[in-house]
Amino acid sequence: MRRINIALLGFGTVGQGVWNLLKENAEQIKEAHQVEFSIKKILVPTLDKDRGIAEAKAFFTTDFSDIENDKEIDVVVELIGKADKTLEYMERSIKAGKHLVSANKHILARHGLDLYKLADKKEKMIRFEASVCGAIPIVNLVTESMSVNKINKVMGIMNGTSNFILSKMDKEGSSYEDVLKEAQELGYAESDPTDDVKGFDAANKIAILASLAFNSSFDINKVLIKGIDEITKDDFDRANKENCTIKLIAGAEKTADGVAISVKPCFVKRDHPLAAVGDAFNAVFLDTNCAGDMSIMGRGAGSLPTASAVVGDLIDISLKKDGKADYSLSERLSHNIKQVDMSGVEIKNFEVIE
Amino acid sequence: MRRINIALLGFGTVGQGVWNLLKENAEQIKEAHQVEFSIKKILVPTLDKDRGIAEAKAFFTTDFSDIENDKEIDVVVELIGKADKTLEYMERSIKAGKHLVSANKHILARHGLDLYKLADKKEKMIRFEASVCGAIPIVNLVTESMSVNKINKVMGIMNGTSNFILSKMDKEGSSYEDVLKEAQELGYAESDPTDDVKGFDAANKIAILASLAFNSSFDINKVLIKGIDEITKDDFDRANKENCTIKLIAGAEKTADGVAISVKPCFVKRDHPLAAVGDAFNAVFLDTNCAGDMSIMGRGAGSLPTASAVVGDLIDISLKKDGKADYSLSERLSHNIKQVDMSGVEIKNFEVIE
Repeated sequence: MRRINIALLGFGTVGQGVWNLLKENAEQIKEAHQVEFSIKKILVPTLDKDRGIAEAKAFFTTDFSDIENDKEIDVVVELIGKADKTLEYMERSIKAGKHLVSANKHILARHGLDLYKLADKKEKMIRFEASVCGAIPIVNLVTESMSVNKINKVMGIMNGTSNFILSKMDKEGSSYEDVLKEAQELGYAESDPTDDVKGFDAANKIAILASLAFNSSFDINKVLIKGIDEITKDDFDRANKENCTIKLIAGAEKTADGVAISVKPCFVKRDHPLAAVGDAFNAVFLDTNCAGDMSIMGRGAGSLPTASAVVGDLIDISLKKDGKADYSLSERLSHNIKQVDMSGVEIKNFEVIE
Repeated sequence: MRRINIALLGFGTVGQGVWNLLKENAEQIKEAHQVEFSIKKILVPTLDKDRGIAEAKAFFTTDFSDIENDKEIDVVVELIGKADKTLEYMERSIKAGKHLVSANKHILARHGLDLYKLADKKEKMIRFEASVCGAIPIVNLVTESMSVNKINKVMGIMNGTSNFILSKMDKEGSSYEDVLKEAQELGYAESDPTDDVKGFDAANKIAILASLAFNSSFDINKVLIKGIDEITKDDFDRANKENCTIKLIAGAEKTADGVAISVKPCFVKRDHPLAAVGDAFNAVFLDTNCAGDMSIMGRGAGSLPTASAVVGDLIDISLKKDGKADYSLSERLSHNIKQVDMSGVEIKNFEVIE
């Protein structure tokens, strides 16, 4: 039985999910992979709260260097989010000789290539399945299983909060403002919902996927980003007249001018599979040259679903006998594929997806 | 650039797909994985035909020992089907020190564990993504990405021919016999359609998936197998009255008495995502304890889609720097999970899936 020691940076919803999953599914993980994971340290901002899981408190530290200097820790799992020090901690973890698992779409969409280069230089692995669409193993699909195909297009519903809001507006005929308030009360939307409803969260995800699908690094500042916060009942009335609903669609596509990446609300025909993706579910479509069309749907957020992606990455790392990645992400993304600058594009009409 | 030499056993639809994919997507494969595949030999029954691709003829041999004894061949890709010698060739390939990729659901559902043991003993890899649902990377999902979850149920539409027939019966109100004849004329059904329409093909696939999902080896003779060849217009009328369509559903499920594996026609509610899976598409649903529900849909058969799965396996093998598998399939499947004997169960009513 192999043993892997890990440290968690952050102990919020996903961190606690990782704790709970490792406990609940220890037997399954042993059966399938003959490996045991042990959480050795957890970085938290203050020691005074037990943060929901009392037994975890014994592993808390407020000092990152406790983790950095612990030679027994094999993998650091970064689940802090957008805080100031996050990128620094990620880099220091790799420099300290640890593998890195991260759910940080914001940082990976901006500093991914630098981090992959650093990891390759240090011969450590970096994995980030949880950064895109929660439980859906879309990073793995695009990077590995589907990577023998030329990918023409990646497209999907990649933000659960805005999908929850749009689905409810569609079903109940309510206004954006009313549904947002309800979503906030139910915990489906944060008190500051900007990242979700303005499309920034989905933009990070599609930028990460595009880089893997098209073997290049892309500039997030050239992505067209339009959210759902200006969608009105009138828009839904017009959609209905065309037998459509409205979904926030993130997409990346090869065009004659380069790869075009966008996030924008679209009309989706009611008989299209994306129209049926309700609540906080996510779905991703791939249009490929040999495998043809493929779609995958699942839970795009939440404690245990996102933990499933994190622990999947831990398994991937644990399986490497020599502790080194099978492939070099920085080499793969070093191809300079042209990107269309979509940032200034004005959207006048809803694109119709059929 | 790494170079991998392969041999194909068989040069029918899928073999030619592999040839075409490796040619068409060589650049993408190099960009993504810094590897080049070269087909060195192709086993065919006779040398007299060019079998559709004239340049391939130079690589033809009718003598398996030509391949077995060629030290330069790293991987054997078995695409022969149910012929007498197939299992023998698979074993001899591994014994000769070659990795094995196979699309042979019939053999893997019966002799999988023996083959995995042999491969582990010889420290060679055996991969078989193409044996289940064509382009859909469901073997990979169940074996790797989703394997940190306890899987409660795997279920889906796993036979394209019967789905094509049922979809057409549903849409056009035609009889089974008429649609089968049309499917045969269009090339969607074989002249002897037994394996597809009687559920045997789907049974092999679900048996393979069940073994990976539940970490055990199961007996195909205990699987309940009921096909679509007795479905009548009356059945569809009754389904319609319940707002359902009819689909051939292959499923494996944990029950109090053990794992129950079955293939049978079911009523599927029209608003269930499986109801929308038309034509020759396949779809698989996973019910897991942490990731929640997940579904994946794609092309379940065909030359290039199946080749996509085969070449995905070749990539997987090519990435192992030491030429050894990351995990032992025989160790994983060595858990003796109880199986319910469903073989004698009589189906009186259609199960309703909602």
